[in-house]
Amino acid sequence: MRVAGIIVEYNPFHNGHLYHLQKTREITNADIVVGVMSGNFIQRGEPAIVNKWARTKMAILNGVDVIFELPFAYACNSAEIFAYGAISILNQLGVDFIVFGSECGDIDKLKETAKHLAFEEDDFKSSLKSYLKEGYSFPKARELALIKTCKTNIEFSSNNILGIEYIKWIYRLNSKIEPFTIRRIGASYNDPNLTQDTYASATAIRRNINNLHAIKNKMPSVSYEILLEEFESGRGPVILEDYFKLFIYNAIVVPDFLKNKIDVKEGLENRFEKYIFNSPSAKNLLENVKTKRYTLTRLQRIFIHAIVRNNFDQKALLSITPYVRVLGFNYKGKEYLNKIKDKIEYITKLNQQWLKNPQYKELLELEIRSSMLHALQYKDFHKYLQTEFKSSPIYISSRS
Amino acid sequence: MRVAGIIVEYNPFHNGHLYHLQKTREITNADIVVGVMSGNFIQRGEPAIVNKWARTKMAILNGVDVIFELPFAYACNSAEIFAYGAISILNQLGVDFIVFGSECGDIDKLKETAKHLAFEEDDFKSSLKSYLKEGYSFPKARELALIKTCKTNIEFSSNNILGIEYIKWIYRLNSKIEPFTIRRIGASYNDPNLTQDTYASATAIRRNINNLHAIKNKMPSVSYEILLEEFESGRGPVILEDYFKLFIYNAIVVPDFLKNKIDVKEGLENRFEKYIFNSPSAKNLLENVKTKRYTLTRLQRIFIHAIVRNNFDQKALLSITPYVRVLGFNYKGKEYLNKIKDKIEYITKLNQQWLKNPQYKELLELEIRSSMLHALQYKDFHKYLQTEFKSSPIYISSRS
Repeated sequence: MRVAGIIVEYNPFHNGHLYHLQKTREITNADIVVGVMSGNFIQRGEPAIVNKWARTKMAILNGVDVIFELPFAYACNSAEIFAYGAISILNQLGVDFIVFGSECGDIDKLKETAKHLAFEEDDFKSSLKSYLKEGYSFPKARELALIKTCKTNIEFSSNNILGIEYIKWIYRLNSKIEPFTIRRIGASYNDPNLTQDTYASATAIRRNINNLHAIKNKMPSVSYEILLEEFESGRGPVILEDYFKLFIYNAIVVPDFLKNKIDVKEGLENRFEKYIFNSPSAKNLLENVKTKRYTLTRLQRIFIHAIVRNNFDQKALLSITPYVRVLGFNYKGKEYLNKIKDKIEYITKLNQQWLKNPQYKELLELEIRSSMLHALQYKDFHKYLQTEFKSSPIYISSRS
Repeated sequence: MRVAGIIVEYNPFHNGHLYHLQKTREITNADIVVGVMSGNFIQRGEPAIVNKWARTKMAILNGVDVIFELPFAYACNSAEIFAYGAISILNQLGVDFIVFGSECGDIDKLKETAKHLAFEEDDFKSSLKSYLKEGYSFPKARELALIKTCKTNIEFSSNNILGIEYIKWIYRLNSKIEPFTIRRIGASYNDPNLTQDTYASATAIRRNINNLHAIKNKMPSVSYEILLEEFESGRGPVILEDYFKLFIYNAIVVPDFLKNKIDVKEGLENRFEKYIFNSPSAKNLLENVKTKRYTLTRLQRIFIHAIVRNNFDQKALLSITPYVRVLGFNYKGKEYLNKIKDKIEYITKLNQQWLKNPQYKELLELEIRSSMLHALQYKDFHKYLQTEFKSSPIYISSRS
């Protein structure tokens, strides 16, 4: 049985994602494609527009065989930590391949850069050190050191960076996963504009989320229908702005609420303090606070972490092995899950037993908290606050 | 100069309040009437429907000469603590009289009961002890002990209780203030219904706050106009339900968020836990949690204290002397304030100097926090979060 893994957010599932899925089967000739998916908050530090259960349904109905959860602590984090979480889960599952989109589309280039990062050869290390001394932030210093010491010339765009991180962790974890990349088609990851093209970035779709007519042809019809159903039931779209009041609330009732928090350094809390009580929106606040080092995405994650009260030791995240939790599957996925169940312990239904497991306790508590805070934005939130304990994985026996 | 004090909430200022004010002048023949008014949260554990600045304007335009602030820590609290705060401020001001409304309207009866409470004569004390042993809550045991040992027969209705507490503190503080009472006219304090009568309880008015036509004739036109202006500017009506999401938020992110909090005893936190994540509204939640001992009003205060993060030592409140802060005044009030300024230190404009005063620091911080949380419910809250530091007392030189 050939198994391919993909690392996804599906926020929401669009035509570009379908292309990625088809290419994954084509390149790897896999019998099974499993996805590791961000939960209710995504890597860019935003809430997912609809919750993970709806997005799992989209994924399975569009042909992914199993969806596993990337825990909040990893999903809503830097490329390095996000990648570690995803690769660690796929490695536990023992998948044979991963296929990811990148701007460069050249796996050899990405591998070479990743090798440098994974084993930090001496010249790279000393170069990194000197850039850090010059005052560059760690990611920037690392990029500059790579450019200087690594022969390949690669653009440090968001998907290239993620791809390099995936491969780095494959090397570091001594994993047998074989990585493939495809060049991303259509709009780039961050292109905020919708065109006539049937391919659009998830970012562009989210920005136009209230213009349903405009986004309809950018995604498979099942995605669109699920999106509609979620919105009509008051379970979305959930956006960053919905959390602004809660952020301000924290600033009011918790003295120094950002001090010594994850990734808050260099007096960033003072920049927040300057703008927090006179900004009309989260967008405006974060634009005001933004600096070269603190990009919008980084600030958004700090914003979300403050609300979720995420105090997880960030270094510890890279040394523990995350839990494996099934969110949904189809008939083929069911067979696959049956086959692996003797080899690997995975969560299907969350219960107190899992929460007592010291290895997973903190990750799961954070996951539950973040899910409750996603649900808090739904119209009838009292019906959904306890969804984590009530939900079983989504099973779809056929592609209907 | 004869000075009368009144203790008010004006939420909002209605015809019954005007009657009380006129009677106060009539009975005491006072030159000056000063009011001590609840700020942005009221004794029943609810936000004021419009903020203290708007309500101060109502008061001054309706003829009160000066409005002083009853700090949040006292205002949003039990009758005993509320009364202590108010009497302590009026006593510092050296007013000659207080006039309050009560259901019984008989000052001698109220005085006699208050005397018992103030000095807790031996038979009362032992009776109280035995009722407590029988399992009654403190207020109920005290009521039963009073009925048993005090010759007067008095109904323990909300305004009688407040009146008794006022007089008790006059005795305890050895104050020279002379108390008067008038029988409340029209609807009772808690009557939730509006009638054709031009007198209605503040509770009834608040319940019909969105039916502006129905409440218009229950209040002086200046009150109505100020109310309208506040609503049209998005600064109200602020209601308890507006805080429901913040309460749930606290329950999600703070483990045991009610444990050992003010007035939370006898496993009340477990009752909350049972209902908190499946109740559709604050009203529904509190109705579910309600018991004989934990009345709705008491639960509402617990609800507000949780949101404001009020951890003020409740016993300490009865031994410190609260600050005196001017919220507004008219021409006569200005003269009065000039006259007393050598005798008593009062706050006009809040600044860091006052906040550094160790005697007032905690009270003021709580006041500011509660004001910010009131403002957080306005449409353009970012314009009002720092109002406490920007506002000067309201001065109205003539009655319009």
